[in-house]
Amino acid sequence: MPRYRLDIEYDGRAYAGWQRQAGLHTVQAAIEQAILKFSGDEISLRGAGRTDAGVHATAQVAHADLTRAWADDKVRDAVNAHMQAAGETVAVLAARQVPDDFDARFSATGRHYIYRILNRRAPAALERGKVWWVPKRLDHEAMAEAAKVLLGRHDFTTFRSTQCQANSPVRTLDRLDVRRSGDTIEVTTSARSFLHNQVRSMVGSLKRVGEGGWTADDLSAALEARNRAACGQVAPPDGLYLTGVDY
Amino acid sequence: MPRYRLDIEYDGRAYAGWQRQAGLHTVQAAIEQAILKFSGDEISLRGAGRTDAGVHATAQVAHADLTRAWADDKVRDAVNAHMQAAGETVAVLAARQVPDDFDARFSATGRHYIYRILNRRAPAALERGKVWWVPKRLDHEAMAEAAKVLLGRHDFTTFRSTQCQANSPVRTLDRLDVRRSGDTIEVTTSARSFLHNQVRSMVGSLKRVGEGGWTADDLSAALEARNRAACGQVAPPDGLYLTGVDY
Repeated sequence: MPRYRLDIEYDGRAYAGWQRQAGLHTVQAAIEQAILKFSGDEISLRGAGRTDAGVHATAQVAHADLTRAWADDKVRDAVNAHMQAAGETVAVLAARQVPDDFDARFSATGRHYIYRILNRRAPAALERGKVWWVPKRLDHEAMAEAAKVLLGRHDFTTFRSTQCQANSPVRTLDRLDVRRSGDTIEVTTSARSFLHNQVRSMVGSLKRVGEGGWTADDLSAALEARNRAACGQVAPPDGLYLTGVDY
Repeated sequence: MPRYRLDIEYDGRAYAGWQRQAGLHTVQAAIEQAILKFSGDEISLRGAGRTDAGVHATAQVAHADLTRAWADDKVRDAVNAHMQAAGETVAVLAARQVPDDFDARFSATGRHYIYRILNRRAPAALERGKVWWVPKRLDHEAMAEAAKVLLGRHDFTTFRSTQCQANSPVRTLDRLDVRRSGDTIEVTTSARSFLHNQVRSMVGSLKRVGEGGWTADDLSAALEARNRAACGQVAPPDGLYLTGVDY
C-alpha cells in the first residue's frame, strides 16, 4: 500500500472542523470523498492537527494509504479536480509518496499556528471569517511582553478545553510572538503539540492583556491556577490558521 | 446639507457590482440602505469607481449628503452597525465631513488597482473568489517587460468593453507593474481614470504574454489595432481590487 503525504490548504468556514463526524461536512471527509472518486479507495486520512470548526489551514499535513502507486502530481491534481467539482474550499498543495513509517500525526515534531486579529473600528469585510475583529485598540506591546509568561514547559490546564482528550496537560511552548502590522495583530506560536483550544485560549487571554483588563502578572496567575475557569475569553476560530508541521 | 466622504472596503463576491440597479444586490444600495436606517435620509451615494460584479475594494471612496451634521465617527459606526446586521461584506473604514465641492467621482485625480493572480497547480482554497487561479506557470518577467508597451497616453479601444460609456477611448496609463511573490503575481496599475473593463482586459492580455502565447510585440499590435476583437482574454473579476483614489 503506497503511502502519500498531502499538504493541504483550507478555508475552514464551511466545515465542522477537520475530523470526520457522521452527518457533518468536515475537511477530512471532503478529501476522503475526493480520493474515493479518483482512486476507488475507501481510505482513512490521518491529519497532523485536528482543527476545530471554522479554523483554517495554509499547511495542514495528512497521510493516506492508496492501493495503487500513482505519480505524485496525478494524486494532487485528481484530488483537487474532484474537490473543485464538489465546491469544496480545500486544496491539496502537494502530494508525494513517503515511506510507510511516515505518520502525519505521530511523526510530527512541531506544529505552527498563526492567529490574526483585525484591530480597527470598522468590521472585517474582505476578511470576514478570516480574522477576529476587535474594535477596541489593543496594546500589542503589552501583549508581546505578557506572552513570555507562557513560554516553556507548563501545566496548561487553564488553557485547554474541558473536552480535551490529551492524557497530560503539560506542554512546552516554544514560541508565542505578538506583532502588529497596521490594523492587524498576528500571534505566531509553535510547540511540539498543543492541547485542545490551547491557542485560542492563550490568544483570548492575551487580548485581555491588550485591552488593559489584565497585567502580565494576571496572566501568570491564570497559568499557575491550573484551572480552566481562570482562563480569559476563548478567541473565536475565525482568526486561527495551522501554518506548518515539522517532521 | 453636510457632505460626508466615506472610505469603503468590500468583498465583491456577493454583489452585482458597485452601482445601484433595480432588483440587484449592489454595494451602493447596501450602503444607501444602511444610511437610510441610521439617519432617515434617502440619499444617492456617488462612488469614485463603478466596480463590476465580483470586484473588490480595499479603498473605494464615495460621498453622500446628509440632512443633519453628525460626528464623523458616529456616521462610520452607525452605517457599519446596520450593514453588519444585514450581513453585508462591506465596511466603512472612515467617514468625515468634507467641503461641498468635494465630489468622490469628479474630484478624483488618480485611481489605483491591484490584480492578483494565484499561479500554482493547486486551486485557490483560502482565497477562492479573491484571486484568478492560473495553474500554468507564467513568466512574470516577460509580463513586466511587455506591460511597458501600455504605459502612457493611448487609444485603449482594444482594452475597453463594448459597453463602455466613456466619450473617449484615450487614457493615460501611469503605472502597470507586474511582480511575483511566491505563488502570487500582482499587477499594480494607476491612471487618472480607467475605461470599463480596462484593467481586466490588460491583465488578460498580459497573462497571454506570461504563458508564452504572445510577445510584447503582439501586445503592442493589439494596442495599435484599436479594435476590441484584438484583445486577449478578459481576466475574471475575482482578482481585481480598487485600492485607492487620489484627490
